[in-house]
Amino acid sequence: MSVEREIPYKIYLEESEMPVAWYNLRADMKKKPAPMLNPQTLQPATIDELSAVFCKELAEQELNTTDAYIPIPEGIRSFYKMYRPAPLVRAYCLEKHLGTPAKIYYKFEGNNTSGSHKLNSAIAQAYYAKKQGLKGVTTETGAGQWGTALSMACSYFDLDCKVFMVKVSYEQKPFRREVMRTYGASVTPSPSETTAVGRKILAAHPGTGGSLGCAVSEAVECATSQEGYRYVLGSVLNQVALHQSVIGLETKAALDKYGVKADIIIGCAGGGSNLAGLIAPFAGEKLRGEADYRFIAVEPASCPSFTRGKYAYDYCDTGMICPLAKMYTLGCDFMPAPHHAGGLRYHGMNSMLSELYDQGILEATTVKQTEVFQAAVEFARVEGILPAPESSHAIRVAMDEAIKCKETGEEKTIVFGLTGTGYFDMVAYEKHNNGTLTDYIPTDEEIAAALSKLPKVD
Amino acid sequence: MSVEREIPYKIYLEESEMPVAWYNLRADMKKKPAPMLNPQTLQPATIDELSAVFCKELAEQELNTTDAYIPIPEGIRSFYKMYRPAPLVRAYCLEKHLGTPAKIYYKFEGNNTSGSHKLNSAIAQAYYAKKQGLKGVTTETGAGQWGTALSMACSYFDLDCKVFMVKVSYEQKPFRREVMRTYGASVTPSPSETTAVGRKILAAHPGTGGSLGCAVSEAVECATSQEGYRYVLGSVLNQVALHQSVIGLETKAALDKYGVKADIIIGCAGGGSNLAGLIAPFAGEKLRGEADYRFIAVEPASCPSFTRGKYAYDYCDTGMICPLAKMYTLGCDFMPAPHHAGGLRYHGMNSMLSELYDQGILEATTVKQTEVFQAAVEFARVEGILPAPESSHAIRVAMDEAIKCKETGEEKTIVFGLTGTGYFDMVAYEKHNNGTLTDYIPTDEEIAAALSKLPKVD
Repeated sequence: MSVEREIPYKIYLEESEMPVAWYNLRADMKKKPAPMLNPQTLQPATIDELSAVFCKELAEQELNTTDAYIPIPEGIRSFYKMYRPAPLVRAYCLEKHLGTPAKIYYKFEGNNTSGSHKLNSAIAQAYYAKKQGLKGVTTETGAGQWGTALSMACSYFDLDCKVFMVKVSYEQKPFRREVMRTYGASVTPSPSETTAVGRKILAAHPGTGGSLGCAVSEAVECATSQEGYRYVLGSVLNQVALHQSVIGLETKAALDKYGVKADIIIGCAGGGSNLAGLIAPFAGEKLRGEADYRFIAVEPASCPSFTRGKYAYDYCDTGMICPLAKMYTLGCDFMPAPHHAGGLRYHGMNSMLSELYDQGILEATTVKQTEVFQAAVEFARVEGILPAPESSHAIRVAMDEAIKCKETGEEKTIVFGLTGTGYFDMVAYEKHNNGTLTDYIPTDEEIAAALSKLPKVD
Repeated sequence: MSVEREIPYKIYLEESEMPVAWYNLRADMKKKPAPMLNPQTLQPATIDELSAVFCKELAEQELNTTDAYIPIPEGIRSFYKMYRPAPLVRAYCLEKHLGTPAKIYYKFEGNNTSGSHKLNSAIAQAYYAKKQGLKGVTTETGAGQWGTALSMACSYFDLDCKVFMVKVSYEQKPFRREVMRTYGASVTPSPSETTAVGRKILAAHPGTGGSLGCAVSEAVECATSQEGYRYVLGSVLNQVALHQSVIGLETKAALDKYGVKADIIIGCAGGGSNLAGLIAPFAGEKLRGEADYRFIAVEPASCPSFTRGKYAYDYCDTGMICPLAKMYTLGCDFMPAPHHAGGLRYHGMNSMLSELYDQGILEATTVKQTEVFQAAVEFARVEGILPAPESSHAIRVAMDEAIKCKETGEEKTIVFGLTGTGYFDMVAYEKHNNGTLTDYIPTDEEIAAALSKLPKVD
């Protein structure tokens, strides 16, 4: 062990220390994630088939399980330099507040206008779309985090960006909508009259507030019915996990710079892109037998893909257009209860993380949202940053682990991912402040009913 | 001139390079700003008189025109380390976008939950209040930026924080209100039933949406009617300008580190605290004859204190409780037109800046808000950061100066202050996006009417 230098509150890498290649953890996995399946044939998807859905180079990244490092193109690195490196923060004030001997660090991805790590993949996807000569991309958004990141990325590369936003969010979250419009994106409340599927839903359900599934279907139709467009996803895919490895690479470089070895690494998990990115280089060490770490995925009790889902092939998108992935899933029709305030609503989990969980490399736990918001407020008051509800799932478990250290006297080093800020989530904070936030844990019957709809794949 | 090293996109000082003392520009001014006056006697306010209004050490700072450096207490430096150093950003993308030979830098103060530089003084004022054994502080807030900063600072030092928020903002900006509540502040819509002045206004004007002046009066009454409370201000005072010198000191250290000499330094100016802080160490050099710079204060055309105001004694607060300062002012009853969207609504200008303007050390210019929002959107799209409307006043003039360089071929180095983010200002951006934002320039008659109410001081 090298001697620890005095650790500043925030470790910023120099620009010259920033990663020049993404790390592809799959290359170090002996047992690889199961291949994606073509939704029509249910056979492993070929590069040509995937290229109809994704940009060619992204399709290649999706299938690449052998190259450990994939160079980050200069055009993306320039953009990364505008808002990265993200700081690795030593949570001195939180440690003092908890009275723990644990050393707590968090990688803060919220210092950009999209407010989260989503921008790391949005800019990559926009870059390859531009390189391939596409005119634009379409996507859906609920709360608007992914839509905002994609709008910023498309604005930078002068690509058209069409966002279908769940109508009820469009009306209730006008601020996110306006950020996207400020970046030049067209934002359409879904269901809309602009697509056949939207018109059909509106005819059947006049006045509906829409759903994420419906927005996905409209975005997909919009992309496939126009020349030069693709539909893009902000999580769950292995290409997204690859781009997010920049989080883990920076984190590891910052820790190494100060001779710090992490014991526990914690991340919230919705589709899994942030967690996959954060743990990637550490998990590589663990798989290669070079170091040991505990990795903890934290999911909401209301959407427990890892802990109560099934490891099976399922559709990545509710519209069943994208390829199928083998993953821990609750079924692509599963919807968390409406009073679930945070994000992390995705029905499945990235296939690489799913395989690591199945192999016992990764642990998973669930937390209730009332406990999550208590942790969020405690954190905000001592560390200054108002965290996103999603990120606060990781805060909750990091605090719990630090409190355990207080009880045992162990000086563990705990690292967690602070994926973003909660500035656009104040409606949920208001509920917490007013004491009206409640918990909902799906019953076994509800989970079983959702799982019964999984596609039959041999 | 030293040789320029290759400049990264963002210059972050090391923690060890952060300022350990604030710089008090008044010490280097041969002709000092005029003294504050006691509002009862209209004679120069003594330290004892000021101590009834401000914390003792803040009162001393307010009167200190001789010590060039005032040490930053360790308790404040620890907090600064949580969100500072703020990056000095080289605006490579903006330069390319404008096609200018100018080199553009901006000091970005928005990377904290309060979203602006206000936190730099809030934490100092809270520190001295705590040190003096006070129970808490009161203040007013309009849009909520200052209230948010003060809430965070009080939460950190476990001080009670009572914010009176203009009722119409309280109702229309629930997000800001909830951020303050999340940090434990009590937020009262003003006018309220909790004060005598509030009850009086409510009786006379039932259903009123309130005003900043009314909120000030309630905050002052609340502070003066309770043991252990003080009313605090977030701008205009010289103590605030002193705390904000951390902006300029970091900026200068970052430029010096890379051998860069600024030619033009630009800041938006409402009460002047950000501009005073940004230019302080550079203005010191200029006053001492060591270097020359152009300093440009940018104010909204709708609230033109420097360019159309009068250099005279006036009340700092609409409630006429705080001491009087000699400053460029439009009169403490002046209110910008209701369709003025950004901040920078303050009627007067910091007395030190006023004196520098009077001496010709500092220039001032006005910009219209429609031009400001055009610059804001252009900036957001190329530099990634969605700026606060206030900060965008400086962006507008920095871009104009860079475009002049394009015409003349001059490679000037332009530095401006990007004081904050616009995440809570999306209503104004929505107006801009919808093309419904308009300009209003007060008539000569309106200005003359406001100035006619200035207090008579010999």
